[in-house]
Amino acid sequence: MGDRKHRRRKSVQRAVTPNTLPGTLCIESGAAPPAIRIMAYSSQDYVETTVQEVAEIRPILEQWPVVWVDIEGFGDGATLRALGALFDMHALALEDVVHVHQRPKAELYGERVFFITRMAQLREELETEQVSFFLDRHFVLTFQQGAPGDSFDRVRRHIRANAGMLRTSGADYLCYSLIDAVIDQMFPVLEQLGDRLEELESEALSRPSLDTVSRVHAIKGQLLSLRRIVWPMREALQTVLRDTASVFTADTRVYLRDCHDNLLQIVDLVETYRELAAGLTDLYLSSSSNRMNEVMKVLTIIATIFMPLSFLASLYGMNFDPDASLWNMPELRSHWGYPALLAFMTLIAGGMVLSFWRNGWFRPTLPPMENRDTRDPHDDAL
Amino acid sequence: MGDRKHRRRKSVQRAVTPNTLPGTLCIESGAAPPAIRIMAYSSQDYVETTVQEVAEIRPILEQWPVVWVDIEGFGDGATLRALGALFDMHALALEDVVHVHQRPKAELYGERVFFITRMAQLREELETEQVSFFLDRHFVLTFQQGAPGDSFDRVRRHIRANAGMLRTSGADYLCYSLIDAVIDQMFPVLEQLGDRLEELESEALSRPSLDTVSRVHAIKGQLLSLRRIVWPMREALQTVLRDTASVFTADTRVYLRDCHDNLLQIVDLVETYRELAAGLTDLYLSSSSNRMNEVMKVLTIIATIFMPLSFLASLYGMNFDPDASLWNMPELRSHWGYPALLAFMTLIAGGMVLSFWRNGWFRPTLPPMENRDTRDPHDDAL
Amino acid sequence: MGDRKHRRRKSVQRAVTPNTLPGTLCIESGAAPPAIRIMAYSSQDYVETTVQEVAEIRPILEQWPVVWVDIEGFGDGATLRALGALFDMHALALEDVVHVHQRPKAELYGERVFFITRMAQLREELETEQVSFFLDRHFVLTFQQGAPGDSFDRVRRHIRANAGMLRTSGADYLCYSLIDAVIDQMFPVLEQLGDRLEELESEALSRPSLDTVSRVHAIKGQLLSLRRIVWPMREALQTVLRDTASVFTADTRVYLRDCHDNLLQIVDLVETYRELAAGLTDLYLSSSSNRMNEVMKVLTIIATIFMPLSFLASLYGMNFDPDASLWNMPELRSHWGYPALLAFMTLIAGGMVLSFWRNGWFRPTLPPMENRDTRDPHDDAL
Amino acid sequence: MGDRKHRRRKSVQRAVTPNTLPGTLCIESGAAPPAIRIMAYSSQDYVETTVQEVAEIRPILEQWPVVWVDIEGFGDGATLRALGALFDMHALALEDVVHVHQRPKAELYGERVFFITRMAQLREELETEQVSFFLDRHFVLTFQQGAPGDSFDRVRRHIRANAGMLRTSGADYLCYSLIDAVIDQMFPVLEQLGDRLEELESEALSRPSLDTVSRVHAIKGQLLSLRRIVWPMREALQTVLRDTASVFTADTRVYLRDCHDNLLQIVDLVETYRELAAGLTDLYLSSSSNRMNEVMKVLTIIATIFMPLSFLASLYGMNFDPDASLWNMPELRSHWGYPALLAFMTLIAGGMVLSFWRNGWFRPTLPPMENRDTRDPHDDAL
Amino acid sequence: MGDRKHRRRKSVQRAVTPNTLPGTLCIESGAAPPAIRIMAYSSQDYVETTVQEVAEIRPILEQWPVVWVDIEGFGDGATLRALGALFDMHALALEDVVHVHQRPKAELYGERVFFITRMAQLREELETEQVSFFLDRHFVLTFQQGAPGDSFDRVRRHIRANAGMLRTSGADYLCYSLIDAVIDQMFPVLEQLGDRLEELESEALSRPSLDTVSRVHAIKGQLLSLRRIVWPMREALQTVLRDTASVFTADTRVYLRDCHDNLLQIVDLVETYRELAAGLTDLYLSSSSNRMNEVMKVLTIIATIFMPLSFLASLYGMNFDPDASLWNMPELRSHWGYPALLAFMTLIAGGMVLSFWRNGWFRPTLPPMENRDTRDPHDDAL
Repeated sequence: MGDRKHRRRKSVQRAVTPNTLPGTLCIESGAAPPAIRIMAYSSQDYVETTVQEVAEIRPILEQWPVVWVDIEGFGDGATLRALGALFDMHALALEDVVHVHQRPKAELYGERVFFITRMAQLREELETEQVSFFLDRHFVLTFQQGAPGDSFDRVRRHIRANAGMLRTSGADYLCYSLIDAVIDQMFPVLEQLGDRLEELESEALSRPSLDTVSRVHAIKGQLLSLRRIVWPMREALQTVLRDTASVFTADTRVYLRDCHDNLLQIVDLVETYRELAAGLTDLYLSSSSNRMNEVMKVLTIIATIFMPLSFLASLYGMNFDPDASLWNMPELRSHWGYPALLAFMTLIAGGMVLSFWRNGWFRPTLPPMENRDTRDPHDDAL
Repeated sequence: MGDRKHRRRKSVQRAVTPNTLPGTLCIESGAAPPAIRIMAYSSQDYVETTVQEVAEIRPILEQWPVVWVDIEGFGDGATLRALGALFDMHALALEDVVHVHQRPKAELYGERVFFITRMAQLREELETEQVSFFLDRHFVLTFQQGAPGDSFDRVRRHIRANAGMLRTSGADYLCYSLIDAVIDQMFPVLEQLGDRLEELESEALSRPSLDTVSRVHAIKGQLLSLRRIVWPMREALQTVLRDTASVFTADTRVYLRDCHDNLLQIVDLVETYRELAAGLTDLYLSSSSNRMNEVMKVLTIIATIFMPLSFLASLYGMNFDPDASLWNMPELRSHWGYPALLAFMTLIAGGMVLSFWRNGWFRPTLPPMENRDTRDPHDDAL
Repeated sequence: MGDRKHRRRKSVQRAVTPNTLPGTLCIESGAAPPAIRIMAYSSQDYVETTVQEVAEIRPILEQWPVVWVDIEGFGDGATLRALGALFDMHALALEDVVHVHQRPKAELYGERVFFITRMAQLREELETEQVSFFLDRHFVLTFQQGAPGDSFDRVRRHIRANAGMLRTSGADYLCYSLIDAVIDQMFPVLEQLGDRLEELESEALSRPSLDTVSRVHAIKGQLLSLRRIVWPMREALQTVLRDTASVFTADTRVYLRDCHDNLLQIVDLVETYRELAAGLTDLYLSSSSNRMNEVMKVLTIIATIFMPLSFLASLYGMNFDPDASLWNMPELRSHWGYPALLAFMTLIAGGMVLSFWRNGWFRPTLPPMENRDTRDPHDDAL
Repeated sequence: MGDRKHRRRKSVQRAVTPNTLPGTLCIESGAAPPAIRIMAYSSQDYVETTVQEVAEIRPILEQWPVVWVDIEGFGDGATLRALGALFDMHALALEDVVHVHQRPKAELYGERVFFITRMAQLREELETEQVSFFLDRHFVLTFQQGAPGDSFDRVRRHIRANAGMLRTSGADYLCYSLIDAVIDQMFPVLEQLGDRLEELESEALSRPSLDTVSRVHAIKGQLLSLRRIVWPMREALQTVLRDTASVFTADTRVYLRDCHDNLLQIVDLVETYRELAAGLTDLYLSSSSNRMNEVMKVLTIIATIFMPLSFLASLYGMNFDPDASLWNMPELRSHWGYPALLAFMTLIAGGMVLSFWRNGWFRPTLPPMENRDTRDPHDDAL
Repeated sequence: MGDRKHRRRKSVQRAVTPNTLPGTLCIESGAAPPAIRIMAYSSQDYVETTVQEVAEIRPILEQWPVVWVDIEGFGDGATLRALGALFDMHALALEDVVHVHQRPKAELYGERVFFITRMAQLREELETEQVSFFLDRHFVLTFQQGAPGDSFDRVRRHIRANAGMLRTSGADYLCYSLIDAVIDQMFPVLEQLGDRLEELESEALSRPSLDTVSRVHAIKGQLLSLRRIVWPMREALQTVLRDTASVFTADTRVYLRDCHDNLLQIVDLVETYRELAAGLTDLYLSSSSNRMNEVMKVLTIIATIFMPLSFLASLYGMNFDPDASLWNMPELRSHWGYPALLAFMTLIAGGMVLSFWRNGWFRPTLPPMENRDTRDPHDDAL
């Protein structure tokens, strides 16, 4: 708990560190040292290696037509600055790579493309990790924060297996494949959120508790976070698609347009889920007010039946002295007094019950679970 | 239930199958093998046939001015690849055809048009099926998922009967007719949703139950799903209308503009129904709070009348010894004690009832059903 | 009721009649046969006549500079087709005229203008009727569904009386005058809706019933319907205003711009009323929760006063035997027992009442009606 | 009341007066006869006069470089038509001047500018008055409905005192100053609305009554009305700012841009207040539900304590005959029966109170007034 | 309190001071006299000084390549006018500087840039202070209202330390650094608001009081105020970014684009927080209705158990005379009467409890605090 809190605090305080100069690398002290992993390939062959020194990268760059340099962790400013120098990155771009709370965006430096996005994962909470892409004619740089696991294994396998068009295409196609992998990873996140909403919906109807509302609120927050990622990603992709001067060839741009369509679908789903989540709060309130109604009905039925009866019983518990006057509760001494009263009471109680019955108070307002088609919206939604 | 669930799951997992290469056909294992049905016609004649082998299509293509190839089911990747090769489709287009959870869209490859849309049907739930159109100068390809029944029978009958302008027009007019048929099929879906909303409205007012809210929620979800289909379809149609290089002639584009107007009307209706559905939740809450009020009034009337009476009865049930003191409940021995008390009680009860009457507590807050004009909005809406 | 229902159903089923060919006239079987009414005028003279045969129109067209052909009812397809042929209308335009559930729109065929709009009338419900205009250099065609009464009488009187600029202007000015009449007719509809909202507001505050909410819901639906008319009408007018090739002269376009301003004002009013109607549901819920509060206060006051008193009374109604022990309810035999208890009870009841008084439970939460300025928003709104 | 109602009705019926010809002056019968007030000035001198006849204006126009003709009241059609002829106004412009329910707008006739706007004043209700400006190179015409008081006195004083740049600038600067005066007058209106919202907020928290909600609803309506004025005014100003052919010089347009900024600020404030007002309804509902909770707690505490006690007392008020059996209520004759029961009752009551205490039912949910910082949003808002 | 109120009032009344001429400096009487603080630097050296007379600035301007004049407080009109004259500022710009309630905006006078923005600080309430920038080729003027503390210390330290690119860049880079400092200062404000929302969320769930709602309302108001600052700031920055004629070099504009990205992130956060705050009201209402439900359950359980028991006890407290008839309550004299009744009562009570148990009335609807993941949305949000 405190850990999570701590993380968030830091992420915001960054922006107010008094001595931050623009263009300065502000390395977070606890960050992992960068692990540099290189894949280089031509249509004939490929090589996969890990380097310690930035200087080792240059010969690989000269030898292979497509080089993918994957950097994980930003714990060492010197290495990053060396990388920036080797690949001629703008100081602000390098700064954005390290400041891991950027809004997704694309920046075009001539034909080079700098693309910042976020990977999303839904564990207990929604976890997002910044991934930056730096694409030139012959290489792709990817910068990851260093959370365990990435979504690039699929691409690695394809390079090794020489599957698909990867090995025969340029660095731009590689970059597209990586971006595609990041976007594809959002579908299972949405699927999980959809499942949670489905559970919460049946919970809201069958056993509404405050926990339901609290979890709906949490999901709303997660959807807001997702939206804050996918909307700017869409803008960024559009920026790249519009720009014809970049290294993305017309062919690859057709594929990127497909990425863009996927992103639009994610945007649609996020908005749909947000509306469904908003509906769940109404559902909870309706369900809760329904339950209150039921409780009140029980109370009212009991009170309405027993109050008149108790009054009658109390009445004949009064101590008016029948001896003092003929008018003083002669019923108490009459032969059929007690049975008559009991009969009268039964009549009253029966009449009450009948009147409640006629007014439908005993009719269940909650139909049997299996009749309700409450899972439709989610199935429709996907 | 489990089946539906299963379907949904699969539809999303598709996007994360680890080995999916872009441009690869990912055939769902349970999908039906493709049934290829061909209609070819000129203004003089027409032929209608079913082929097993893709190779059989080529002679038909060479012989007839307009050929419509209708493929249903995607169970066999080889056949689909052969079709793609025969008609020279882009790998991504073929992929989109098979991945049946696309967002409706139009793509223009030179003068060729690739159009993805969805047919909608309302059974228990809203069921949608992806339909893809691939249009060139002399042929139209339609790809259907293979759900039983389609909306193309109308077009087939017209071709056979040489009715309307179909037989004398080109493949673009055929494509328009098919798209028109898909759009027209949405009107009965909206009509049914309108009927359901109407029922739910009168239910919300006369016998509100949790089921009402649950069904309103389901309809909201279905409207959201419809909206997710019709908005992108509108964009796709606009793309086609704007592009003057496609095979759609100026004449056919006038008809397509009509399609677009119909789609706009559907968009308007969907938004109207969404607002009406949102209003229904308010209606339910009002109705429910109204009923609670009624219940509370009954309770309060009963309690207010019988509590003072019971207190009086209890009072005279006390055992203060009249012998011990003159002050100890002399009423109990007075001649008119009991009748006087009964009269007093009647007075109190009558006063209470009168005061409730004056405050309008007995006035019904629910007017007779036939006086209310609760069906207006729906009639107005269409 | 059944009649209204019937109408709606039909209106939607139209779109799915299986054999409808685009460009085919689909005559509704119960529709009235067309009544053709002609007014033709020059600055010197005018003629007003009714024709049975379409052929009779041609000589009038040749003789007069401005001819207005007003067709009411679409019961006879042949006549309509003859009209279409005489005036050279596009098949789709004629189809749109007959399919009376079009979205308002303007279409420009060269310098000719085809304009579809709806007249609105508020009886019990909002009733709308489609009116189509077809304007060329020398004539205006108007097609009405044939509901009793139209808003064109004003224009007819002006032609007869040679009032205003009508007789000295061309067909485009006539067309403007007719469109203006249709738009002007919406103001009394809005006025009536405003009056109803005003009534409902005072009802929601003074005597909230479920009927109030139901009627607010109906008005919301009517405003949604109005919005679905006026927004596209505005777009259609803008289309006409932007197009400088049409027969509308620059002078008449100045007047059309005035129409457009009126339409904008209607749009503003509809949106304002929609927000006021949305506020009324909140008002009802507040008022209803207020009333519930009052009811609960009565119950709580009664219960809080009488429960302790009843308990005391019951206490001294216990039958502990004072003879068995000195400790057993000696009060019952004390001289001042009963008066002391009565005094104690009065003290308790008085204390309770005082405490409620101090907490403001007797203060009315509903101020006298005449002090509240609840009618402001409506007066402001217009 | 009836008076206000009357006004509103008339204002709307105007649009449907059956014989209204476009371009016809429709003089409201009760309107005040026009009072024509003229200020004319050069940098050296100025003259201020009132004329009865329109003909008297012409010599002034010829003599002075800048002439301001201020017309108040439209009771005499002839005078207005004479003015229209003298200043060569379009018939529609003159019509708009007289029909005092126009949407604010700007129209450009060549270099002449016709500008319609509304002055707002908050008395009991929001009162708005239409003001029209007609600007040419050497004169400004202003038309006011004739409500007592205007916002132009500031400008008059400056002309008399030769203060600022007025006397040395042209008619366009005069027109700007007058528009600026109209816009500035909206700030105190907003300030008053802000004060009322502030009051209502503290009322909603401390003593929520139905009157609070009703007044919030009224303020919402007033804000809607204001919005319906300021949004089109902004559009109108933008129209003027964009058009470089009008008599507004580049210098004056810089000042007009400042007006536009003020209007943007008003728009922002109106939207902010609308959101705050929307929040107040929630506040009321929360406050009301809070109060209901308190009432229910009182009831429940009382009932929970006294019901078991009353039951025990009733129990020992039963008349089972101890003589008939040893098992029949031997407690009644035991030595310590009564005190033991009393002790037991005290124990139960104490236990209940303790359990309520532990559950926090006695904790006040309403903190002391002075600790709450409930006035923030308003202070922030300005 | 009164102080705050006073401040607000004044800020609005400004706009209606009757004698305000456009272009006139309207000095607030209580404002601090201007303190003029100068930093001037070249890449080799820097000077930092405070001047009393405006005339002292001219030599510095002539001597140094970049001069930053920081004016705090507007108490002396003459000094400000002298500054305006020295730096050749437009009268309206100077007026905007002094009228401290401007909407953020950018104005371009040729290559000069005039930029108005606001600094935000969150103490008890949100406090904002207007800061104006006036940038030319060789100098930057900053005008601050004079609240204690500013966000420019970071920049001053960098100039002194010759850190970063400040000393080697031009005045435009200095201006960027200052604007960046103002924007960066908003992140801690948002962080604090996020913390408060987090607290309020857990409060709304665990101990909802009216104070929670009131504070949520206050935060909503603060977010509205922030939005009213950042949206126009974004527009203003875009104006500067679009204009290529200003003194901002292409290099500096790259940095400004970074500022713009930060502002976009702030806008996103403000909108996210606004939605979270909106959700909190729902959470409160749900939590409150939940608590009401719990209270009502307690009441209903107690009443349902004790009402029948009390009735039975009252029944056997009746005084029907067993001597008068065999039918008159023979139970009272039966041997096992009393124990049997007690057993029956126990049975009834047990049955009730069991039935409540089965219906889940004793199940807690509030889960233990530690299990709920209610803090997610906030962590996700940043």
